[in-house]
Amino acid sequence: MSPDRQALARASLTYLAEPGDPALGALLEACEPTEVVAAITAGTLPGTGPACGKSPARRRALEAALGRWRIRLSWLPDDAGLADARRDGIRLVCPGDPEWPASLDELGPARPYALWLRGQADLRQACLRSVSMVGSRAATGYGAHVAGEIAADLGERGWTIVSGGAYGIDAAAHRGALATGALTVAVLACGVDYPYPAGHADLFADIATHGLVISEWPPGRQPARLRFLVRNRTIAAVTSGTVIVEAGERSGALNTARHAAQLGRPLMAVPGPVTSAQSAGCHRIIREWAATCVTCADDVIEMLSPLGASQTLPPGAAPSAPKSAAAGAVPSRDELDTDSARVLDALPARGAVGTSTIAVEAGVDLDTVLRCLGLLAGSGFIERCERGWRLRRR
Amino acid sequence: MSPDRQALARASLTYLAEPGDPALGALLEACEPTEVVAAITAGTLPGTGPACGKSPARRRALEAALGRWRIRLSWLPDDAGLADARRDGIRLVCPGDPEWPASLDELGPARPYALWLRGQADLRQACLRSVSMVGSRAATGYGAHVAGEIAADLGERGWTIVSGGAYGIDAAAHRGALATGALTVAVLACGVDYPYPAGHADLFADIATHGLVISEWPPGRQPARLRFLVRNRTIAAVTSGTVIVEAGERSGALNTARHAAQLGRPLMAVPGPVTSAQSAGCHRIIREWAATCVTCADDVIEMLSPLGASQTLPPGAAPSAPKSAAAGAVPSRDELDTDSARVLDALPARGAVGTSTIAVEAGVDLDTVLRCLGLLAGSGFIERCERGWRLRRR
Repeated sequence: MSPDRQALARASLTYLAEPGDPALGALLEACEPTEVVAAITAGTLPGTGPACGKSPARRRALEAALGRWRIRLSWLPDDAGLADARRDGIRLVCPGDPEWPASLDELGPARPYALWLRGQADLRQACLRSVSMVGSRAATGYGAHVAGEIAADLGERGWTIVSGGAYGIDAAAHRGALATGALTVAVLACGVDYPYPAGHADLFADIATHGLVISEWPPGRQPARLRFLVRNRTIAAVTSGTVIVEAGERSGALNTARHAAQLGRPLMAVPGPVTSAQSAGCHRIIREWAATCVTCADDVIEMLSPLGASQTLPPGAAPSAPKSAAAGAVPSRDELDTDSARVLDALPARGAVGTSTIAVEAGVDLDTVLRCLGLLAGSGFIERCERGWRLRRR
Repeated sequence: MSPDRQALARASLTYLAEPGDPALGALLEACEPTEVVAAITAGTLPGTGPACGKSPARRRALEAALGRWRIRLSWLPDDAGLADARRDGIRLVCPGDPEWPASLDELGPARPYALWLRGQADLRQACLRSVSMVGSRAATGYGAHVAGEIAADLGERGWTIVSGGAYGIDAAAHRGALATGALTVAVLACGVDYPYPAGHADLFADIATHGLVISEWPPGRQPARLRFLVRNRTIAAVTSGTVIVEAGERSGALNTARHAAQLGRPLMAVPGPVTSAQSAGCHRIIREWAATCVTCADDVIEMLSPLGASQTLPPGAAPSAPKSAAAGAVPSRDELDTDSARVLDALPARGAVGTSTIAVEAGVDLDTVLRCLGLLAGSGFIERCERGWRLRRR
């Protein structure tokens, strides 16, 4: 099957199904995208493989999904809109493509079917040394200032700032990165050509010129409430860590935070005045030890860089040429500090173990173990799973 | 030996030696205070007990100390100033007195020789449900506001606010407590009749009227730089937990914080704007997981009250009549929540164990273990020692 046909099929799927649809995710683990699209078009389930045949209940669920996806067949443009997109400077990146960020594969069946991109930067390269910075739309002047400053400082040191393109903290983070000429990536919950919020049309144009605007939804698709939540897992998964700058108690940024924590990526939060409701969510996750308190770019880099200074490019160094980095290019074991090396050694070759077992095995105190686990996960050595922590397959 | 003679001896020692003198602390563990004073007066070491006889090096060190203490014999007033003090409304409380806070005994040989008190409140009762709140002298408007609010809220729920009587956060904490008619205790690094800082003479008078001004130094003694550091251990030891409201990177409040942590008492810090240097010390100890992030009185009470609501008196209830509380009156095991009970059960009857062993034994996750250990220590069930945690002798 030619790569072009697989890309066409994946582009089609972004029109037919909502991103994060578990039925489609499971199906794509068992069948080729072309088979799935053919099945949707024909209205019959593909083959009788383990993903779709064995249990009657599973088969019924898949048939319901098939009906759901077929409803949108009328939305599917000729050649899945790829020619129109190309004309508008929009391209498609699929799992397995050289530009596909390997970190997204950690989402398992929930990984995006494909990504639509606006901008010239290489997505994989941009994400190798990247951090997501998200927060409240109703940001205070304090929050916007701090987000912009930290984003600019991180950008100057070669880190890509990933955010959601919303008003408030997101915009301040993007603008902070743009101000220093750093790469920034906006992950939208609508088509990359759909200006939402409308007031950010110019900002998205700037981002596309100097970085990337990306989306799991096809061009022209409108945003919707649930889409923001689904989009958040991609913001968390594509980066080495997530920084929450301001978040009220019910902020959507806390949803992104949860995804980062579930993926075992370092989760950080910037404190603020306790008198500000916009910092309440940050304080809560710090207080509950879900997030590390960070106050500046140095704090963030320390959390993202188990190797210390060697991870940090000098200011002005080309951000597109990381030497060794978090997702994708995993540093060698020899580069780890002693504690991290001991913690890594304490993980069994197969299976998973809990944190306390690791602490005992490594002979390292708990606080250090917890810190090292976050750093090792951020560097791609290990990953969190239901039963604790396990080595990541290389 | 009559209690009066022992009190006279201890009062004398507060004139002759600096508080926290390790030589005197060790001597007092082996000899009666009267014997020590007699030895200083005579210029010969008391007896040949294990504290002062065996090793020649130890004997030489004690002789040097004796010389040091004898220098101040000229400062010692008749009857150790007790009659003059009584006339000025100042009284002495000694270890073993009904009013002596048992929590101070956890300082071991470093516990105060005695305390001079100004005010009518019962010191032991006042400290049963107490929290220390300290911070920067150069407090910002934000810090002073938050300290005052949290202190007032804690005071309304029957908690005594202990602080150091300094400008800035200390004063805001005392004033917050006074505003709600709550008990507040100022622990000074000079005589309780010495108005330092001079601008706080009226504040100290207010505190003495509604609470207590206490000191390890005798009446009339001036403050000195080192005395503040020595004093800080008493602020930490006399309370169930310590809250740092604002602290620059080199703030003396961080010294109090260290004492609280060393004593195994819950250490809390209030975050603030990351743009404020006065919050940098708070953010650092939160970031390093030495302190828990707290934003309001509820957060503080949760850290101090393993028993939850039963620890919290309704607003307006008499603060002088706690039902069960931290230091001294230890609550029964039956009142503990399930996690705390499991953690407590995981400690061996004799000897100490590390945190990870406790986690494994209790079958409780690490974050919960760490929280429970802090709470159990704050309630007097357990204590931290060199090899980890152990049951506290009841």
